[in-house]
Amino acid sequence: MLEGYRGKALEFLSSHNVDVGDLIELQKDGLSIKGVVMPSYSKEDDIIVIKLDNGYNIGVSISGISNFKLVEKKRQNIQVSKGEQKPLKEKSEVKIISTGGTIVSKVEYETGAVRPALTTEEIINFMPEINEIAKIDAEVLFSILSENMKPEYWIKIAESAKKALDEGNLGVVIAHGTDTMAYTASALAFSFKSLTGPIVLVGSQRSSDRPSSDSPINLYSAILVAKNSPFAEVTINMHGESSDTYTLVHRGVKVRKMHTSRRDAFQSINDIPLAKVFWKEKEIKLLRDDYIKRKEENALDAKFDTRVFLLKYYPGINPEIIEYLISSGIRGIIVEGTGLGHTSTEFVDYFKKATKDGVFIGMTSQCLFGRVNMNVYTTGRLLQESGVTPLEDMLPETALVKLMWVLAHESDLDKIRSLMLTNFVGEINYRHVPEYFPRWFHDGIRLQ
Amino acid sequence: MLEGYRGKALEFLSSHNVDVGDLIELQKDGLSIKGVVMPSYSKEDDIIVIKLDNGYNIGVSISGISNFKLVEKKRQNIQVSKGEQKPLKEKSEVKIISTGGTIVSKVEYETGAVRPALTTEEIINFMPEINEIAKIDAEVLFSILSENMKPEYWIKIAESAKKALDEGNLGVVIAHGTDTMAYTASALAFSFKSLTGPIVLVGSQRSSDRPSSDSPINLYSAILVAKNSPFAEVTINMHGESSDTYTLVHRGVKVRKMHTSRRDAFQSINDIPLAKVFWKEKEIKLLRDDYIKRKEENALDAKFDTRVFLLKYYPGINPEIIEYLISSGIRGIIVEGTGLGHTSTEFVDYFKKATKDGVFIGMTSQCLFGRVNMNVYTTGRLLQESGVTPLEDMLPETALVKLMWVLAHESDLDKIRSLMLTNFVGEINYRHVPEYFPRWFHDGIRLQ
Repeated sequence: MLEGYRGKALEFLSSHNVDVGDLIELQKDGLSIKGVVMPSYSKEDDIIVIKLDNGYNIGVSISGISNFKLVEKKRQNIQVSKGEQKPLKEKSEVKIISTGGTIVSKVEYETGAVRPALTTEEIINFMPEINEIAKIDAEVLFSILSENMKPEYWIKIAESAKKALDEGNLGVVIAHGTDTMAYTASALAFSFKSLTGPIVLVGSQRSSDRPSSDSPINLYSAILVAKNSPFAEVTINMHGESSDTYTLVHRGVKVRKMHTSRRDAFQSINDIPLAKVFWKEKEIKLLRDDYIKRKEENALDAKFDTRVFLLKYYPGINPEIIEYLISSGIRGIIVEGTGLGHTSTEFVDYFKKATKDGVFIGMTSQCLFGRVNMNVYTTGRLLQESGVTPLEDMLPETALVKLMWVLAHESDLDKIRSLMLTNFVGEINYRHVPEYFPRWFHDGIRLQ
Repeated sequence: MLEGYRGKALEFLSSHNVDVGDLIELQKDGLSIKGVVMPSYSKEDDIIVIKLDNGYNIGVSISGISNFKLVEKKRQNIQVSKGEQKPLKEKSEVKIISTGGTIVSKVEYETGAVRPALTTEEIINFMPEINEIAKIDAEVLFSILSENMKPEYWIKIAESAKKALDEGNLGVVIAHGTDTMAYTASALAFSFKSLTGPIVLVGSQRSSDRPSSDSPINLYSAILVAKNSPFAEVTINMHGESSDTYTLVHRGVKVRKMHTSRRDAFQSINDIPLAKVFWKEKEIKLLRDDYIKRKEENALDAKFDTRVFLLKYYPGINPEIIEYLISSGIRGIIVEGTGLGHTSTEFVDYFKKATKDGVFIGMTSQCLFGRVNMNVYTTGRLLQESGVTPLEDMLPETALVKLMWVLAHESDLDKIRSLMLTNFVGEINYRHVPEYFPRWFHDGIRLQ
């Protein structure tokens, strides 16, 4: 497969019977170049991307190439099991399922942009110490940036994870882009009725080419958790603070990416993490004991109806959007209301009509922290009378994914409401403590 | 005016020539009841709401009332200047413009729900100490819950504020519901080219009937700031922490309601507040010196085009929403993308078409914290090529309001882009420090 190649370069490589992964040799401008053909993400269609022995990737235009030679077909030490599983010589304890994202990405030599890499071998190479803590097996399920993740992929990830656990792995690590990692975590969390071990999503905010990369530590720590933790939940494991002291294991339904670039971007909202991992000491410190324990079997029920919409309210929004959504076939709307769960009262009639038509309208808050309460103000009461369901302290994103799952299982509006308010995996936290709200910096900063 | 009354109660009061504010007396079920007629927010149409001398409101059904008597027409000490201004005996220093919200609300006796109250006199009564710090004038501009706030009201608020400053007030305090307070603050901030004094929005998270109400302190502190602060910016002044030690003055374009119910819900994002107010000590502690100073005149330019949309991206969203928005006449879209500013690549062609049609597409991040950077990943670069404008570290809500303002002033897409990236009042912060990211609690909590 010549991934990413088009036009002249594709033609050139095909005509030489060369695939991605093959070792080639060529001469150009008096230089001799030898290396492995890499997938192309070049904008130009005449560039071959070659990984040199020193680890660098270069791009070579095919014009003026001489003495092109296929030295060796795809190196067999790059194990890429795509879908089908090779029989393992030694039973693995933790399975790493790679879906793409920065944790498995490389900088595109030509433009400096980051693109997904190919093999989990590359990941494991980051940190050979991994072999000391668990017997690993790895699978590249797909190689996409997480902004392109879709509900249909969630199902594939869930199935792969189930298979890995059914085969006796103690836990599963899922390498995933950070952009939509929390959505995937929620999707997996609602899909599993029971788990024999944890599913630990892990990503990185800095690519592995950078000295400040969080890839190796996050991955190492995720493997530690997958193998040893007593909880069998879908979790996200990422840096806990900006230094390298510990990672945090967040409940997948209670976590959000809260910063575009910090390594400790993932933080629990309206909850505390399940555990803190001191990776150097190989210590998993549990922060609570109300986790879901490892069960005897893995029960999967992954179905999603994407006929939903996430509507963020703002002053001046035209309520006719509701009519459009319904006419386009939407079956449920999660509203990100203001404050305790409000929209303008102009929406009342639209919501009334929608719920009369069997469309679910659920209310969350754009404040993110805290719980909606639609009994305090007149507006909230009016909205409830129009059929809107207040969704407790659920994150808007979690509520949306939950609704996709619920709608794939129920069509009766009362039952949908009841399921949305059923606490399946800790997505609703009935008891809040002041510590959930982070502490902001309230002093002066002297900028140079 | 018999605000809120309908049906039988309206008929009854009208026939007795009774208005809201009038002192009445009646007998019912053997009891003698005397009090002031309050506006009705009762769902029943036969209830008269009466404020007793002890301050409590009660609801009395008209059936069975005997000996009804109008004791005194509307008490003249309730000064409600609606729109028109009474000539002041003494020149005021701070003008309080009341728009509604919890800070001026009362609990609805009948249902326990909160409704907007009527007079600013009621507000000032909360805290007589206010008279010690500034000469006050008050105006009820409107009385709406802030979830019903609209761009057309922003203009009225801006005009009132300008009038108050032009008349020589040192600063303006705007009592506002907290739900959409940050949107209004942004709108006012973009509307004023220059200000002679600060505009301080203030609200409360707990109604004044509750012992834990933050109304009096927030209001007192806002008046202190309006009169004495050296900056002439549009700001939000609310509790800084959950106790009553200090309030914080946030730049209006860099603040968000981050909790549904906490008193310190308002926090600066990607910035630090302008000042910390130790109200007991009457001390305004400046946290920075890069504020906008008081100017010679008030220059107002408040226009908003509401043909915009705030689109929050999520996995599985159908990109056809873009086509609908454009067909409905939308001129600009603020995308709340994932991570550094992404959507799935499925959106690329839709954005390309939109920008070709002159529709502005701006990118912010649903992470809220941090800056978008669309040069790091292939997706970001593709989106930029399709015409999407990365909006630095602007909050999605601020970017949306700014876009409404910009679209009301420009129609050329290049000029719109350029204005959106012009830093008018600190909505873009080019330098970030680690302190901007709050500290989450990462330890165990023992729940009883």
